[in-house]
This record gives sequence, structure tokens and C-alpha cells, in this order.
Amino acid sequence: MKNKAITSRDEDFAKWYTDIVRCANLAEYSNTKGCVILEPNGYAIWEKMQSVLDKIFKQTGHQNVSMPMLIPENLLKKESELVEGFAPECAWVTVGGQNILDERLAIRPTSETLFSDYYSLKVKSYRDLPKLYNQWCNVMRWEKETRPFLRTREFLWQEGHTVHATKEEAEAETLKMLNVYKDFFEKYLAIPAVCGKKTEKEKFAGADYTYTVEALMYNGVSLQSATSHYFGQKFAKAYDIKFLNKNNEWQYAYQTSWGCSTRMIGALIMVHSDDNGLVLPPNIAPRQVVIVPIGESAEVKALADKYLKILSEANISVFCDDSDRSPGFKFAEHEVNGIPVRIEIGARDLANGEITLARRDTREKMNVKVDCDIVNEVLNLMKSIQQNLYDRALKRRDELTYRTDDISQVEKIIKTKPGFIYSHWCGKQECELKMKEIGGIKSRCITDEPVSDGDKCVVCKEKAKHMVVWGIQY
Amino acid sequence: MKNKAITSRDEDFAKWYTDIVRCANLAEYSNTKGCVILEPNGYAIWEKMQSVLDKIFKQTGHQNVSMPMLIPENLLKKESELVEGFAPECAWVTVGGQNILDERLAIRPTSETLFSDYYSLKVKSYRDLPKLYNQWCNVMRWEKETRPFLRTREFLWQEGHTVHATKEEAEAETLKMLNVYKDFFEKYLAIPAVCGKKTEKEKFAGADYTYTVEALMYNGVSLQSATSHYFGQKFAKAYDIKFLNKNNEWQYAYQTSWGCSTRMIGALIMVHSDDNGLVLPPNIAPRQVVIVPIGESAEVKALADKYLKILSEANISVFCDDSDRSPGFKFAEHEVNGIPVRIEIGARDLANGEITLARRDTREKMNVKVDCDIVNEVLNLMKSIQQNLYDRALKRRDELTYRTDDISQVEKIIKTKPGFIYSHWCGKQECELKMKEIGGIKSRCITDEPVSDGDKCVVCKEKAKHMVVWGIQY
Repeated sequence: MKNKAITSRDEDFAKWYTDIVRCANLAEYSNTKGCVILEPNGYAIWEKMQSVLDKIFKQTGHQNVSMPMLIPENLLKKESELVEGFAPECAWVTVGGQNILDERLAIRPTSETLFSDYYSLKVKSYRDLPKLYNQWCNVMRWEKETRPFLRTREFLWQEGHTVHATKEEAEAETLKMLNVYKDFFEKYLAIPAVCGKKTEKEKFAGADYTYTVEALMYNGVSLQSATSHYFGQKFAKAYDIKFLNKNNEWQYAYQTSWGCSTRMIGALIMVHSDDNGLVLPPNIAPRQVVIVPIGESAEVKALADKYLKILSEANISVFCDDSDRSPGFKFAEHEVNGIPVRIEIGARDLANGEITLARRDTREKMNVKVDCDIVNEVLNLMKSIQQNLYDRALKRRDELTYRTDDISQVEKIIKTKPGFIYSHWCGKQECELKMKEIGGIKSRCITDEPVSDGDKCVVCKEKAKHMVVWGIQY
Repeated sequence: MKNKAITSRDEDFAKWYTDIVRCANLAEYSNTKGCVILEPNGYAIWEKMQSVLDKIFKQTGHQNVSMPMLIPENLLKKESELVEGFAPECAWVTVGGQNILDERLAIRPTSETLFSDYYSLKVKSYRDLPKLYNQWCNVMRWEKETRPFLRTREFLWQEGHTVHATKEEAEAETLKMLNVYKDFFEKYLAIPAVCGKKTEKEKFAGADYTYTVEALMYNGVSLQSATSHYFGQKFAKAYDIKFLNKNNEWQYAYQTSWGCSTRMIGALIMVHSDDNGLVLPPNIAPRQVVIVPIGESAEVKALADKYLKILSEANISVFCDDSDRSPGFKFAEHEVNGIPVRIEIGARDLANGEITLARRDTREKMNVKVDCDIVNEVLNLMKSIQQNLYDRALKRRDELTYRTDDISQVEKIIKTKPGFIYSHWCGKQECELKMKEIGGIKSRCITDEPVSDGDKCVVCKEKAKHMVVWGIQY
């Protein structure tokens, strides 16, 4: 039985997406144009993402700080590529209190400028290095078209900004954080990730190079889901971050930055969810298990209480729904909300010494004995759901992954069943732009696949330099 | 021995304060005027405050959400008292991307308007109530004079916003959250709090009434440290938050809001810290224990490793400083940073089967046996520090608490040794304003002390209505 409030995913993917966002109470449009309200169910997913990532960031030596949300225009303009990239989409504060400001202030679209300015004050000696800082905050980019989680004017994210004494150390950091994201996608979000460098055209404004985590949505559209940038000394030179090295010589520092955002909630929806609502991998679900007692029996209630206690003590995030609504209503609601495991306790089952477990991913139900090791049963079930979601996403991605150096094939794929297209590329921007002309394909990333002598660019047929993954993007 | 980088607290309190902020690396001025950078040591205290409070908020049934940071001017203006109170100190976005906006947008100074607008959409039936939401976010108020943590244009805080079906429920919520803050101040921050209602003049713009948590700083100046507001139906009427009650009649809802901010870090500094730097109560210290191994002995190193492991496993926040700096340098640094307990492990002590524990609050050192129960020793020591800091702060507050209905006495107190002054008040605003004329005293709060027939207003000598706490404020 299908949830009638939700449009079918295969019928109208865009409408299905907004239905999920609405029906699962993840986000609501606000009267501030282009900005959404993260409702409790949506924000709880973000909190869970934060708690997992923050722990990893700290374990890898990073510390949290908080920078101002406003950037004076002259500070923003010190690095020319960055300002070209971001100034056109800044929101500007021009009035403070009762006065028109002498200099307008941008709401941060990203904080390289603020961190660099701060580092220029604090970094004087190799002994001050590295500094491995991160902040969880809101940023603002004046987008024209917006969609909840995928693209909104304001969004929540984390941005790591590090400064190092050597190129090697900074490059190692860039790669390390890429792998932190990749692992997070695979182990927590159950989303297989394709990683690599962005092309010159697609890299972050001001970066020497950008690594990206690309994920493929159910409809074959790619989502750039996290990035890690190596800056070399570009910002250090623009913001004068100099230090005395071990040889007592002044030198410029090396920097990185890396970030991921609430956009990952959009990825979770578009990779795993179905026509019955949200589907969440247990490892990232804020609420992993719901217990639904059926009927008024004291025995049922006692068992529900017992399970609630035992599962909570085992650090499983569990709650009991003993509201006065009907079981069918509750089942549907918890399905829409994507609770991975439901425990149904009813008098009829109990008479047989059994209870029912329902898994959200496949919607299968199974009976287990009342006297089973419930913690173990639930943990095994969650492990199985987590694995199944990853396997299912990987299978879908593989089905939608193509390899061709024939441009007419590329065109056909994009028109019929888009996905990740692996095609060789000569490295020239004009060929990259040509790809965009046919169906709006952009390069997702450059893979590290070796290129043979005979390999030719999919567009110009000249000697290939790289194997590139292409796709339509959000 | 006194830390030479820090001005004496009794000599120049204001300079001492900024010295602590700088030397303990809590915050740094930024090039965005009026805004500070929270550095790792400062932000970690905020994170600890957040983790404690967030847990309590959730245990009391609240959920986190995220509202936009920008408020359209027309939305802000719907509640007249609020807009009068806050519009003069808003920062305004007037340009978005390349375009001048049709309507300017305020960076939120507080979010009653956004929550009320949202609730008007979501609350339709008594079944939708209560909604108990909170957000952790940044807000902006265009202050002229700023000081780190105490008053900055941008600051971090939490704001709870709840909506209820009945007056009784909303009033109970207002009081409940006041008590959450009071307990937090006493149990975690080790700061005795004076609580009560604000006068009409001092209450929050738009509130029916405001409860406040007032703390007394070492120099006798009061700090409004957290507030809890009851709105009645004022915002519900302005933003049209109506629902069908159990009798199937439309009625307006009742609301509250309550908040506390990074200002609490300022309170921690000004209540507990001393001429050697920051002093942190163990219950709120991000790092509770530092182990300092002295010398190169393998035995010393092994014991340091062992303690690090044991204490970590007991959920004590501990770290080991095995850098190549001198012990004296390390001791001073960890003192400046306010680490409550230091464990010194040296070869000489070890030869006697002993190690040294140093407590930050009194700077006393004591020897304990190597084979003691180190977890127990540390836990007891932290408990003792926590209690001592509270007792010390209470003693100081009591010393600086006065009771008089003689206005010449009030004047004298304020000029010589200010503090909390308990004086009767008739309830008239002109008398409140008169108090302000003498030394800038403001009412802190109305106490619930009973007033006798013979009690007279400290200013006009007419019949008293309330016992009020007065003081100079930050």
C-alpha cells in the first residue's frame, strides 16, 4: 500500500522530493525568500551528522572556533579569484542601526577571508603551525532558484580552515579530509561516493585544486556533496600570512579548506527514500527504533516499557509511541519519518510468545520470540538495513554508470537514463564546454584511472589526458 | 607569584578582564567592527555550555529547529513593541546579489517574529500544541560600545520559543525555564543567581513579563545572564496564531521565549578568575585535568600514560602536555587557561612513591601516593573546587549585598563599593528613573519578598509595593 500524500518517485521525481520534505516534516518554506526553516525532524538529522563528524574532526586534531558572519568589502576583495567567484552572489548589509555604513559588509558566503585575516595576526613562527580550525555556522549565497536542502540562500555547514608550514603537510590535510568525507558517506549515509579532482573550470574560486565527493541520486542526477580544497600560498600571499621557519627565514604559509552542508540531507532523501516516505540509514537516523504497543493490555505496556529501557541502555535511540492514535496511523507516520526499525507489540502476538519487527528499507515484517535477546536482534537488523541500503544504492549507481568515448552515445544516455558517464578528455576547456551544450552535462571529477596512448577525447578526438566522470548536476 | 602579563584585578578591573580574554586565548578582536572571533579555548567553553543545556532542554521535551537569519521588514513590524525595541539596533541587508532589494531584510536580533509566523502556519488545533522549540544560532544587534562576551554586535545564543493552548501551561513553562537557568548557574557555573521579574521598564520588548537571572561580578557590577519571557497572547494576536480548542472554538495561543548566550563566558571570567588567569569550575571546564610529566624518565612517561588512560576511561576530560617546554612555562600556561586540576609527575617525587596534584582555584599543591585511586582523588578534588568556587562567589556576593531604604546610603554604596542593593519601591517609573540618576543604578529584578504596611519607597517614601534589587549593570 502506497502513501497517498506522496507522489510516485518514478512519476515525478521533483514533486516526490518536495512531498518527502513536507510529509516527513523536514523543512518548511519561510517568508524570507529563498530560505527554509529546518523543522525538528530535519534539524535532528543535521545534529546527528554534526555529532559524528565533529567527533572525527576532533580525533584528527581539529578545534572549533567562531568567526564573524559579516565581512567588510575590502577584506573580501583581497583575493581576486575568490571575490570574482562570490561577490556577485553576496547579500550586503548597508545600514547598521540608524546609520548608512561607510563600508558595506557581506554576509559570509564562505570564510577563507576571515580565517586568513585572523591567521595573518596569529601565525608568526613555525611553532604556531599547524592551526587546524573548523566552524559550524550559517552562510549566505544569493541564489535565484532554490530547493530545500539542495540550494537555499542561507544554509548550515561546517568549514574547516587550516594553515601549515609546508606544502606536503597541507596537501596531506586536503586528502585526509576528503577521505573523512568519503568514509562518512559510505559508513554513515550508506551512499557510495565517487571522488576526484575538479577541473580548472569547476574548482573552488581561489583554490589551487579542489577534491570533491560526488554522489548519484536515484534519478541519475549528480550531487556535489562535500569538497576539500588545497590553496597553496594563494591566500597567504593575499592576506600576508608569513612566519619564521626553522631556518629563521620568513616564508608564506600553506592553506586548505573543506566543507559539507545540510545539502547532505538532500542526498539522503534522493538516494534512499521511496514512495512511502523518508528512508534513513540506522547509522545516521536520529531515532532508530520506535516501539508501538497495540491495545490496552497491561502485559503489552509492561513489555513496551521493558524494551524501551533495555534498548536505551544499549545506546540505541528508541522511543515509544503510546499516543491514542490507531496502530495503522502510527505505522504510516513512522514510515514517512523514516524510522529504521519498528517494534509492534500486540496482545494477539504475545499470546503466541511473539512480537513483530518491521524494517523500513524493505517494509518486511518478521516475528521474534518475546524472550529473545532484543538488543542483539535490533542491532543485527539495523546492521542489515545499513548494509542493504548501501548495496541498493551501489547497485543503482552501477546501473546508471556508463563508459563511452562516443559523443552520440553520451547524448543518448543523457536523454534517456542519465547517470555517471566515464569519458576521456583532452584537458581543453572548450571540449568541457561542448559537453555542457549537449544536455547540460558538467564534469563531476577527474578520476585517477590511467590513460593509454590510444585513448581519445570524447569531444575533439585528440589525445586524452584524463578519464573524467560527467553528469547532470543539481 | 603573579602572572606579569595580566593586570591586577583590584587595580584595573576592565583591563584585567581584557587581559584574561587575551591571555587565555578566549577571543580576539576581528576586522569586522564590534564582532569578535571566538578562539578554541573560548569556543570550547561555549560547546560545553551547549552540551549541558541542550541535554536539559531535550529532557524537558524541547526540540531544536533552525529559522532563517534574515527577517523581512514587514514581518518584523507586525508586533509594535518588539519593533520599537529592536528596529533601532538592526543591521539591514538592502542588496542581494547584483540587485537592490524591494524590501530590506533585518539580520535577526531575536526570532519571535519568525517563530510566530511559522506557528501561525502550523498550529491549527489543540492537538498541535504545545510546540516546544529551541534554536542555537547567531544574532545581531548594532551596539555602539562593545566588549568581548559582554556586549558584541553579533553573538551566539539559544532562544527557546514555545506555544501553548492555555495561559497556565505557558506561565509554567516560563517559570520552568527560569529554573533551568538558575540551576545551571549554580550547579555548573558555580555562580549564585538572584532571580525575579523585571520591572515594566526593564522587561523584554513585547513581553507580558520577563524573569531574569542576575549574577554579581567580582567588582560589584550586575550582569543580566539569562531571561525567560511570558508573552500571553500578544504575538499570537499580531501574527494570527489561532487554533480550534477542545470545544471546537477558535482561540489565540499563548507563548513564551527564553534565552542565554556567550555572555555567560563573561560571567565565568568576572566571578571566578584571578590575577593568574582564567579559573573554571570543573563542571563547565572543557578540559578538566592536565598531566605534566617532568623530565625524560621512562617511569614518569609510563605513569603519565597510565593516568591519561584511566582518567579518560572514567569520563574525565584529561590531556597530557609532553611538549618540549619547561615545566614552569607549562604550569603558568595551564593556570592562565584555567585547567582546574594539574597532575605533576616528576622523578624526584616518584622516588618517594608520590605525585603532586595542584588545584587551580586556590593554587594549593598536595602530594598523593602513586598507588592511590587516582580517579577518586581527582573526582574529589574537582568536587571540592566546584564547591569552593561557589562558596567563594556566594561569600563575595553576600559581602556586596546591602539592604537600605535610605537613598543617601544607596548613593554612598554605589560610589564606594557597589553591589546588589535591596530597597523598597512604590512601583512608579519616575522613582525608578530617579534611582538611575544617582550613579546609574537600574532595577535588576522584583523579589518575591513580602512587603509590610510600614515599608516605604526608597525614593518617594510613599507606600512600597515591592522589594527590588538594584545595581549597576554591564
